Amino acid sequence: MAQTADRYPVAALAELPDDIRERIVAVQEKSGFVPSVFLKLARRPDEFRAFFAYHDALMEKEGGLTKAEREMIVVATSGANDCLYCVVAHGAILRVYAKNPRVADQVAVNYRKAEITPRQKSMLAFALKVATDSAALEEADYDAVRAHGFSDEDIWDIGAIASFFAMSNRLANLTSMRPNDEFYLLGRLPREKRPG
Amino acid sequence: MAQTADRYPVAALAELPDDIRERIVAVQEKSGFVPSVFLKLARRPDEFRAFFAYHDALMEKEGGLTKAEREMIVVATSGANDCLYCVVAHGAILRVYAKNPRVADQVAVNYRKAEITPRQKSMLAFALKVATDSAALEEADYDAVRAHGFSDEDIWDIGAIASFFAMSNRLANLTSMRPNDEFYLLGRLPREKRPG
Amino acid sequence: MAQTADRYPVAALAELPDDIRERIVAVQEKSGFVPSVFLKLARRPDEFRAFFAYHDALMEKEGGLTKAEREMIVVATSGANDCLYCVVAHGAILRVYAKNPRVADQVAVNYRKAEITPRQKSMLAFALKVATDSAALEEADYDAVRAHGFSDEDIWDIGAIASFFAMSNRLANLTSMRPNDEFYLLGRLPREKRPG
Amino acid sequence: MAQTADRYPVAALAELPDDIRERIVAVQEKSGFVPSVFLKLARRPDEFRAFFAYHDALMEKEGGLTKAEREMIVVATSGANDCLYCVVAHGAILRVYAKNPRVADQVAVNYRKAEITPRQKSMLAFALKVATDSAALEEADYDAVRAHGFSDEDIWDIGAIASFFAMSNRLANLTSMRPNDEFYLLGRLPREKRPG
Amino acid sequence: MAQTADRYPVAALAELPDDIRERIVAVQEKSGFVPSVFLKLARRPDEFRAFFAYHDALMEKEGGLTKAEREMIVVATSGANDCLYCVVAHGAILRVYAKNPRVADQVAVNYRKAEITPRQKSMLAFALKVATDSAALEEADYDAVRAHGFSDEDIWDIGAIASFFAMSNRLANLTSMRPNDEFYLLGRLPREKRPG
Amino acid sequence: MAQTADRYPVAALAELPDDIRERIVAVQEKSGFVPSVFLKLARRPDEFRAFFAYHDALMEKEGGLTKAEREMIVVATSGANDCLYCVVAHGAILRVYAKNPRVADQVAVNYRKAEITPRQKSMLAFALKVATDSAALEEADYDAVRAHGFSDEDIWDIGAIASFFAMSNRLANLTSMRPNDEFYLLGRLPREKRPG
Repeated sequence: MAQTADRYPVAALAELPDDIRERIVAVQEKSGFVPSVFLKLARRPDEFRAFFAYHDALMEKEGGLTKAEREMIVVATSGANDCLYCVVAHGAILRVYAKNPRVADQVAVNYRKAEITPRQKSMLAFALKVATDSAALEEADYDAVRAHGFSDEDIWDIGAIASFFAMSNRLANLTSMRPNDEFYLLGRLPREKRPG
Repeated sequence: MAQTADRYPVAALAELPDDIRERIVAVQEKSGFVPSVFLKLARRPDEFRAFFAYHDALMEKEGGLTKAEREMIVVATSGANDCLYCVVAHGAILRVYAKNPRVADQVAVNYRKAEITPRQKSMLAFALKVATDSAALEEADYDAVRAHGFSDEDIWDIGAIASFFAMSNRLANLTSMRPNDEFYLLGRLPREKRPG
Repeated sequence: MAQTADRYPVAALAELPDDIRERIVAVQEKSGFVPSVFLKLARRPDEFRAFFAYHDALMEKEGGLTKAEREMIVVATSGANDCLYCVVAHGAILRVYAKNPRVADQVAVNYRKAEITPRQKSMLAFALKVATDSAALEEADYDAVRAHGFSDEDIWDIGAIASFFAMSNRLANLTSMRPNDEFYLLGRLPREKRPG
Repeated sequence: MAQTADRYPVAALAELPDDIRERIVAVQEKSGFVPSVFLKLARRPDEFRAFFAYHDALMEKEGGLTKAEREMIVVATSGANDCLYCVVAHGAILRVYAKNPRVADQVAVNYRKAEITPRQKSMLAFALKVATDSAALEEADYDAVRAHGFSDEDIWDIGAIASFFAMSNRLANLTSMRPNDEFYLLGRLPREKRPG
Repeated sequence: MAQTADRYPVAALAELPDDIRERIVAVQEKSGFVPSVFLKLARRPDEFRAFFAYHDALMEKEGGLTKAEREMIVVATSGANDCLYCVVAHGAILRVYAKNPRVADQVAVNYRKAEITPRQKSMLAFALKVATDSAALEEADYDAVRAHGFSDEDIWDIGAIASFFAMSNRLANLTSMRPNDEFYLLGRLPREKRPG
Repeated sequence: MAQTADRYPVAALAELPDDIRERIVAVQEKSGFVPSVFLKLARRPDEFRAFFAYHDALMEKEGGLTKAEREMIVVATSGANDCLYCVVAHGAILRVYAKNPRVADQVAVNYRKAEITPRQKSMLAFALKVATDSAALEEADYDAVRAHGFSDEDIWDIGAIASFFAMSNRLANLTSMRPNDEFYLLGRLPREKRPG
């Protein structure tokens, strides 16, 4: 498991600022392991705090999108960006939220073939345009998702999640972030608890 | 699981020519289920026979590539072609052959980050050039894999597998072939038997 | 004519298995020369047999597409894949079947400007999507060809031919297959016989 | 100036949370106007706070990159993403920091032709790879910037700025953010003060 | 300003043929400086004469397009081709003709967000298709501009300007043509005279 | 032969200005037919004159490139731009100049597989970079052709021909220019005279 360049050493927990160490310990207690993204980013505390504040603002909020739908956006756009960390880690979270052991692999490869609703497919088509060709967005793209009942605030959510993971995917590729082994199996077996 | 267009009905086993039915029954007995590709293609017996004869000639032969390496080529190039069926079905087979529950997801998304050897990475770089830009192949591409000890016959194997799945990926997308549910979990848990 | 890397020596006729030698001799007698693809692939008899079995199943069958239309698909998709061997060899066959000395050059470069029917243009638009972006195929693509009277079995043919030559183009590029000199002129002069 | 779709109304200053209103007022006092990005994002206070915290962590820190170099990265990658807001607004800031009225237009269109050092060109080549093809980053890319004296922490900065603006460009395109008129001329005339 | 490779020395005015020297002197007198394109091309008199004859035939003629609209086409397509010289030099001319200090930067980055009419946007969409994918032009593209009142002669003008600058952009990149410093500010301040 | 949209009527010879009619008559007498490009462009006399003046300045001059090599550049870049008129018309001229009935088809599809010298391949690699990605030209590209003995004036010729046909290809696609039937066979049979 060691032959890939492992860029940027992981922070030592004991040396981290209190707030960051506490968040990491809380994740550890809830999930049973610490996802690599926490340890990679912790060596830069200001960036860590801003990253997770932004993440939580987009992923933990209430609104027209379910948590599973938010994760679908992450997995589909991370697949388009060939980001291993995000496909595997968020694929696990998506399986858990959607209570479907297949949907993450489907959405990561080709959402058109996935076991999701037409409304969710329109959401992913919009998210992928934001991810891959945002300058070409035009009124027809907004109308297409509105036709499935998404409000303009929902559309902001869809687009902002795709945008945030455009950043996140690049950071993971830049730093050679590796998915924890635990993620690969999470949500694939019948009874499992949801992640934090 | 039904909202995706399911193109081209699956053949009824009883109506198939004997040789095809026998192959399908044998697969069923060995694996415990019949992969969709057998049932989709069986409605066209001549194409079925040629497809599997070609598949076996490339995937079951002896030579400089292990079976796991042959499946790596399938998974990496199918990932580049966004072929859901092949990523999921051959990902399962790769996990079993490689006895590694993570390698298929890695190779499908980005082989550069996978837990594989530098030699295997050079093999996949060559395979991906065959898959995505074969007209631009030049001497330097052959030299790069030769430098890792691959013979010219091995290179033919690498390129021919990438070529065969260029076809196979397109057939699966054309016919909306769906991976069997069994594939998603296969090879992800400690002790499992190898597929047929 | 020799400065291009000529990869993989051609098989010696005398050393080939009987069935393969017989097929090659038959082609030689009918066409007056042996197309390179036979000699390149013959060094791997199992692959040779599967390749031509598949080819014949798709190109020699009866159905809603004429032989000229099948060759149009080959030439258009091989042009998109920049495959010299297939553009030149199948361009020759297309000229003969279509009894039109210009149509192959047209279809190889830009089918939109070719002397073909709107129905044939819709067929080639579908084939090119299979060749270049099969994961994005959607219902509208199928509807567009159905609107020109193609049945679902015809669509399978169109897509399967594009898929088979996705493989074939890559094999030709991989092995540096060279078109025989005879192909360049074939079908360009008034009275000529059809190829085998 | 009104015919472009102006998506998402701008927040009314009086209704904003105190910390956000204070930041906006401070920017207004320093620059003489409020850049649109503040007013567009302010309608979502949590996202506003995370966005600017992240921005400041990357753009205002000390380190191996000058402020002008950080802005070069923004302008070059925003040019690649066709983001009008970021090209114009950060182009202005770059002109001011670099005290060069031409460099922003150059870097936005083609950094290879810009009046910058070879070291800065290597920095932008790396940033553009992060922006456009981060999954393909490999050791040689890191070595190329290291050869110009950039440390691994500098490389993190380069890549993280490119990543942050991958997000920012998409948000600007999503919300149709318009550059303030003031930005177009800023830094183009001899004596001007630097922005906040 | 000197570190970029400056390919091909500029012609000495005294050694040029009379007609070319006279044209250059006239431009100098009218504009106050000699745009680099004149001096770069003058070393090849026949190409110089043909280039400017073609330029004038397309850019100085009467017809359904205003001079500002012709320059918009130049700036938009030069932006798509990443041609620094043409974006900066023709951006200046566009600002002067349009009497708008912002429109050139907008059109160079993303015409969809520019302060122009829907008719002008349709004109630029057509021009960009000619610039980037002319082989795929089809009846629907012509109909889309006709719907905004453009005649077939106007469409020829739009397409021919995009075609001419496809050449011009490549020549500028080939010869490392540098925009004169004067262009960067031209047309950005309230009262300025129009160029020749 | 009529189902393709035939845009822009051809000029009536009798109504053309004398110099243009005379050039067309001369071509007719020399070649036995009038290539479509003359009749399409003649309806705009100033553009006609500039186009052919430019063409002749680049294609008929003396220098380090043979006439066959100049035509190779045309055919290779026109192939990359999918321009039917230029591939067929200039393919004919190339066959005649090179006295090789196969080389045009080879160069149009994939110059790497063509019966040409390594020096000619380096020339075409440079020309194709000018045609498809001129903004990315860098010193290494110039050095690669210089290593084969091309002078800087030769490199200008190579790049300028690729640039001129970038324009010409787009004009042909814009106006749906059709290759004359005569071109398809020209230069394919043993003894033929050279074109004008």
